[in-house]
Amino acid sequence: MSAHEKSLTGVLPPVPTPFGPHGEVHHRALADNLQRWNTYRLSGYVLLGSNGETVYLTHDEKLALLETARKAIPPHKWMIAGTGGESTRATIQLTRQAAERGADAALVITPHFYGGKMTAEALTGHYFAVADASTIPILIYNVPKFTHIDLDSETVARMAEHPNIIGIKDSGGNISKIADMVRRTGKEFHILAGSGGFFFPALAVGAVGGIMAVANIAPQQVLDIYHLFTKGLISETAELQRKIIPLNGAVTARFGIAGLKAALDMLGYDGGPVRPPLTELDAREREMLRAILVDAEIIQAK
Amino acid sequence: MSAHEKSLTGVLPPVPTPFGPHGEVHHRALADNLQRWNTYRLSGYVLLGSNGETVYLTHDEKLALLETARKAIPPHKWMIAGTGGESTRATIQLTRQAAERGADAALVITPHFYGGKMTAEALTGHYFAVADASTIPILIYNVPKFTHIDLDSETVARMAEHPNIIGIKDSGGNISKIADMVRRTGKEFHILAGSGGFFFPALAVGAVGGIMAVANIAPQQVLDIYHLFTKGLISETAELQRKIIPLNGAVTARFGIAGLKAALDMLGYDGGPVRPPLTELDAREREMLRAILVDAEIIQAK
Amino acid sequence: MSAHEKSLTGVLPPVPTPFGPHGEVHHRALADNLQRWNTYRLSGYVLLGSNGETVYLTHDEKLALLETARKAIPPHKWMIAGTGGESTRATIQLTRQAAERGADAALVITPHFYGGKMTAEALTGHYFAVADASTIPILIYNVPKFTHIDLDSETVARMAEHPNIIGIKDSGGNISKIADMVRRTGKEFHILAGSGGFFFPALAVGAVGGIMAVANIAPQQVLDIYHLFTKGLISETAELQRKIIPLNGAVTARFGIAGLKAALDMLGYDGGPVRPPLTELDAREREMLRAILVDAEIIQAK
Amino acid sequence: MSAHEKSLTGVLPPVPTPFGPHGEVHHRALADNLQRWNTYRLSGYVLLGSNGETVYLTHDEKLALLETARKAIPPHKWMIAGTGGESTRATIQLTRQAAERGADAALVITPHFYGGKMTAEALTGHYFAVADASTIPILIYNVPKFTHIDLDSETVARMAEHPNIIGIKDSGGNISKIADMVRRTGKEFHILAGSGGFFFPALAVGAVGGIMAVANIAPQQVLDIYHLFTKGLISETAELQRKIIPLNGAVTARFGIAGLKAALDMLGYDGGPVRPPLTELDAREREMLRAILVDAEIIQAK
Repeated sequence: MSAHEKSLTGVLPPVPTPFGPHGEVHHRALADNLQRWNTYRLSGYVLLGSNGETVYLTHDEKLALLETARKAIPPHKWMIAGTGGESTRATIQLTRQAAERGADAALVITPHFYGGKMTAEALTGHYFAVADASTIPILIYNVPKFTHIDLDSETVARMAEHPNIIGIKDSGGNISKIADMVRRTGKEFHILAGSGGFFFPALAVGAVGGIMAVANIAPQQVLDIYHLFTKGLISETAELQRKIIPLNGAVTARFGIAGLKAALDMLGYDGGPVRPPLTELDAREREMLRAILVDAEIIQAK
Repeated sequence: MSAHEKSLTGVLPPVPTPFGPHGEVHHRALADNLQRWNTYRLSGYVLLGSNGETVYLTHDEKLALLETARKAIPPHKWMIAGTGGESTRATIQLTRQAAERGADAALVITPHFYGGKMTAEALTGHYFAVADASTIPILIYNVPKFTHIDLDSETVARMAEHPNIIGIKDSGGNISKIADMVRRTGKEFHILAGSGGFFFPALAVGAVGGIMAVANIAPQQVLDIYHLFTKGLISETAELQRKIIPLNGAVTARFGIAGLKAALDMLGYDGGPVRPPLTELDAREREMLRAILVDAEIIQAK
Repeated sequence: MSAHEKSLTGVLPPVPTPFGPHGEVHHRALADNLQRWNTYRLSGYVLLGSNGETVYLTHDEKLALLETARKAIPPHKWMIAGTGGESTRATIQLTRQAAERGADAALVITPHFYGGKMTAEALTGHYFAVADASTIPILIYNVPKFTHIDLDSETVARMAEHPNIIGIKDSGGNISKIADMVRRTGKEFHILAGSGGFFFPALAVGAVGGIMAVANIAPQQVLDIYHLFTKGLISETAELQRKIIPLNGAVTARFGIAGLKAALDMLGYDGGPVRPPLTELDAREREMLRAILVDAEIIQAK
Repeated sequence: MSAHEKSLTGVLPPVPTPFGPHGEVHHRALADNLQRWNTYRLSGYVLLGSNGETVYLTHDEKLALLETARKAIPPHKWMIAGTGGESTRATIQLTRQAAERGADAALVITPHFYGGKMTAEALTGHYFAVADASTIPILIYNVPKFTHIDLDSETVARMAEHPNIIGIKDSGGNISKIADMVRRTGKEFHILAGSGGFFFPALAVGAVGGIMAVANIAPQQVLDIYHLFTKGLISETAELQRKIIPLNGAVTARFGIAGLKAALDMLGYDGGPVRPPLTELDAREREMLRAILVDAEIIQAK
């Protein structure tokens, strides 16, 4: 089954990278986690995203991880690989290597280190060069929290004209801009919410799915938002959306990847440690996190 | 009819302050504009808001303007007065004076000049003191674009506990936060979108109305969004929402109050000049604005 | 003695506004404080600056305060009045009224509420209009911490061409920009440091004085920095500059105006309360402040 | 001669990485450039800094570049290698490999991708782990323009307690903070200005040198600032400092690395192209750059 036969809609978790006791990538843990996620109606997964600590992985670790993941991900589910680096040439290289390892699409973050020089023209040139050189379709990844760059809808619309640029993961959450991207682009351009905090409103204005950290720990709840919305049950969707916000906040801005991994551990997945300089949650933070999971009815009170 | 008998839902334009040829407040123009807006099913008006150039008005001008407006606004429509200043004492004084002139509620902006010291505690103290001293109900006004302060949902929920604080106009547009405010507060706390750019998504997550500059120039379109939404016609609402975005942008971030007033002039209202240091649109900007109005089908092409 | 006969160099404190037990302006306290400051070789004072809580004062309070101050300030010392408001017309009016009450110059803050529209052109228009209409010379006041606007050196140089715009108080502290303003302007344009944190480096690159909160509580130390510098004793100046930084921080960013007033109280001046929504220091903050004053050898340990 | 026998003072350019016609690292061009810079009294060089486009280089390219550079840099001059990555483990590895290739010290940028989690504790843990594991001394690299992280002086002072952390390159330019770092640290901690825009003021408050892009194109002018300052010729130093600001701006914020490389080409060095997504200067920008070089008397008018 090729990427073009799958529909890029619905819910895709950006999965964390498990590390073993010596800090090495823990392949079996990743495979085990994916097996469990496979039991949900998730449309696929993002590997090597920002929740995957990809900036902490070596080139070889990235390639090996994709091989492990592809074996664990059934062909009818998307495997999207985060392949964006700072340079166009490195992004092209990794995108090709990801394609060779079975990635269905590449998620390409906006280069950002020289932020002042990342003009619309420079960024469009980057995405066009990557899309030209890639055998798999490209998704733009806009995440101002990490990059301090926020693509405007006009620039995204220009990028969307490239036939091999098929969508965007927008984690900025400017809902007016998301609506405007829908307005400016066609049906074949897939706009995906980048955080569970605004999944329903993004769907409401025309997004077709989401790539959201919270889907790692609450896949069913996030799928429920999606399916209730597609059935037109608006007030029920809104209710679920509001309910998931504290949980979403806990595994993103508040406790970060360390919180996401700790939550996975509490839920019986293999979360494991983060790589330094990220730091683990302390005991008090773990209790706060646990209380949020209990409130969200993801785990039971002790 | 008292404020408590009106429902604070639906659409309220924050009306601009017309100035005459010598820069003085043009009372008849204001009354005339209101007469025309009165023909729509608008729930009421905000006077002395940020679109009203209130920071450019003297204390006496503000009071006189409220008197003129109240005469032109029928009793069953809200007259909400922007009464927030930097100091608590000045805010209390103006709020009382606005109530004496028939304001149904006061819209109180977050004090912001000493932004670093405007802690949640300082701001809560301010709003509680004003709400205690006021005979009319208080609406919080959160507008980070102008104040560089963005109230979080936890602080708003704390403020909402005061019986005389009945809602918030949120112009920040963080849709996840708007959803979270709905989650944290009760039915009697009215959450109003502060910009037309996210009116529908705000309604979708639980807001009950909006105070939006674009409602000055396109009242029917904004009312249509509201009424289509309340009828559950989601995809039609989304379509209208997306369509209104360029128009909304033109009279807010892009061309500002000068653009809003120029658009009113084009539509046959009395917009008039802005007060310096604001500057008027140049010829090219006016043509761009006109083109946007034509595209939005608000005026006809020449 | 006219303003033109005084030299706008050296050290000028921006004095706080004392309030009495009921929150009213405490004129005698102001006069008493000025009497004591008059014993130092300060070049003058700024009244109605941001340290004077001017945004919390009514128009009438401002005028009365200037009258009190002028009586307490000897003719050979500058009385500079903060007269900048949001509108050009209000700024012109207050500048004229300040001149009538004996102000030697007006310190005009950048209008900032509609920050996105305060282009270089809008701001230049504002300053030129005020300077044209004023009988006393104008000083630009650039304070990004409060206004979120930071004038660039090119715009300042353009403003400096107006014969009645005689200088700038720059509180932003971008030392490269301060050097560049010196480069771009002539000797008759007075560049004054707006914070004690960078007084010496500003002098080193060509500033001629400073208007600094810390000069209220440590006038002699700040004067020493100025006089050691003018004598060419660079390493001694640097030593003093470094030493004053914690003290400066305590009465600016860290504890704000409440801290400045509390420090004045500890030193035997009449600081008094702040106006809400500003909040007073709590007991722990007061102890921290006291410790900093002791470390700086401004007061003795208890 | 070991690193401990050299003095880490004076002027060190952060050299760009020349690329050849196919985008590959151009080793001979680098060696040639270094030969020419060796004729000045520069204290050494930074390789793999942000001006070296290090984020665009592969691991292998970095190691090869250090080998080439070490051969071209005489033993009595510092070769400082930018070895900081996002993860602690990658930073340790590259630091060791740089040491093996003759680097005298490592310049370690603050990790920043997960900016919200880069607390003082996380960053201190990172620097301590790297310093512990490194055989060569560590310099902190604080560059908020690129990282959106600005270390405060208290955190830097804590890091400075580690015996193998010998200094900081501070590109933020907060001169008050630079003074405060001098105050809080001892003589053995070397504070270096990170931009030519504030070199003299940094020296004035106690910095001992600078690592500045402008030193690539105007080494003698920057050395003159340093030597005039050390001779106590303050007004002459200030004059030179002011004069160099437009030149410094041209090869940093204004035209970036593409501007730096274009200027090197104009001066007869081998600047060459930048790697995409950075873009080259267009014809108009090149003319503006040339005019600035002429004004600065670095090249002659055509």
